[in-house]
Amino acid sequence: MNHFNWNDGFVVDFDLDTGKSDSAVTSKRPLSVVKDIFLDTDAAAEILKKEDPMIYEFHELGAPERKGDLAFGTTVIYPGKIGNEYYMTKGHFHTILETAEVYYTLQGAGYMVMENPEGDTIEKPLKKGDAVYVPRRYSHRTVNTGSEPLVLFYTFDADAGHDYGTIEENGYRKMIVEEDGKAVIVDNPRR
Amino acid sequence: MNHFNWNDGFVVDFDLDTGKSDSAVTSKRPLSVVKDIFLDTDAAAEILKKEDPMIYEFHELGAPERKGDLAFGTTVIYPGKIGNEYYMTKGHFHTILETAEVYYTLQGAGYMVMENPEGDTIEKPLKKGDAVYVPRRYSHRTVNTGSEPLVLFYTFDADAGHDYGTIEENGYRKMIVEEDGKAVIVDNPRR
Repeated sequence: MNHFNWNDGFVVDFDLDTGKSDSAVTSKRPLSVVKDIFLDTDAAAEILKKEDPMIYEFHELGAPERKGDLAFGTTVIYPGKIGNEYYMTKGHFHTILETAEVYYTLQGAGYMVMENPEGDTIEKPLKKGDAVYVPRRYSHRTVNTGSEPLVLFYTFDADAGHDYGTIEENGYRKMIVEEDGKAVIVDNPRR
Repeated sequence: MNHFNWNDGFVVDFDLDTGKSDSAVTSKRPLSVVKDIFLDTDAAAEILKKEDPMIYEFHELGAPERKGDLAFGTTVIYPGKIGNEYYMTKGHFHTILETAEVYYTLQGAGYMVMENPEGDTIEKPLKKGDAVYVPRRYSHRTVNTGSEPLVLFYTFDADAGHDYGTIEENGYRKMIVEEDGKAVIVDNPRR
């Protein structure tokens, strides 16, 4: 469904409240697909016996991976927890490591969790109206700590590429979990 | 006021209704500064005898012009006309011509007017919730055809640069003007 003309320009709608689009492709990430990103594998398994909740979705346009083009779209992370860990995206490095990404928060609240190959970590709280700059070299993951969907509009260099592999095995160094009813940043025991 | 850390990431607010920010720099373009972009120079001169209305503002962060970084911010074009020509931005090419730009419409309605060095022209209508892709090689100008401010969130490669000169002398090939109470696209008699 890539009917967008990247040479001659186009207009595409993204609802400012929900992030949904009439014409972008919706990619779905239910718990069954991303269960391994959560620390509490028992809690994930228990939930999956009964249901397969949607953790996040993104709405993308299939930008050509060409120099000078920009990829953009929306991400929606649903509210919820697996054990005490909030719903979040898988997270990724850019294959071209020296490329940034801009996220603009349309709805909800949460964290952008970032980490570079040297092990430096950054966690930035986000709320509606906040734009967050993910600097070059930083892998990034979005976490929903609120009670409504967290909706973000993103833009990055279309040729940057996504590298999921290098953070997939053991997760990010920092985790966002609920303790005593509020979101706190803790060390990941697997790292 | 460039206190943003482009190496370690940062969060900056942009109001989703007004585009205003507590921490971005506001650049103002009143009629006195941009009067030459409008065809009806007599109408502009008449207005300037009495007042100097704000045509547009943008809120920017002073991104470093480095490869891999992204510049972003908001533009607010106020409603109004000079003669029968709607308020609009000056418009620019990117110095690195082969770079795109993404605009996301937060409020209002108007047009993105685009033109490449070969003289190909594109006009895309915009309304709240519309993202518009300005393709590589296209100079672009935003026009407010509505009755409220037109507010856009923009992102582009930070090293793309702005080239105002080449379209400054005679304007874009296409103009957006009011005829019989509605916005129409007409040829620019100066081109």
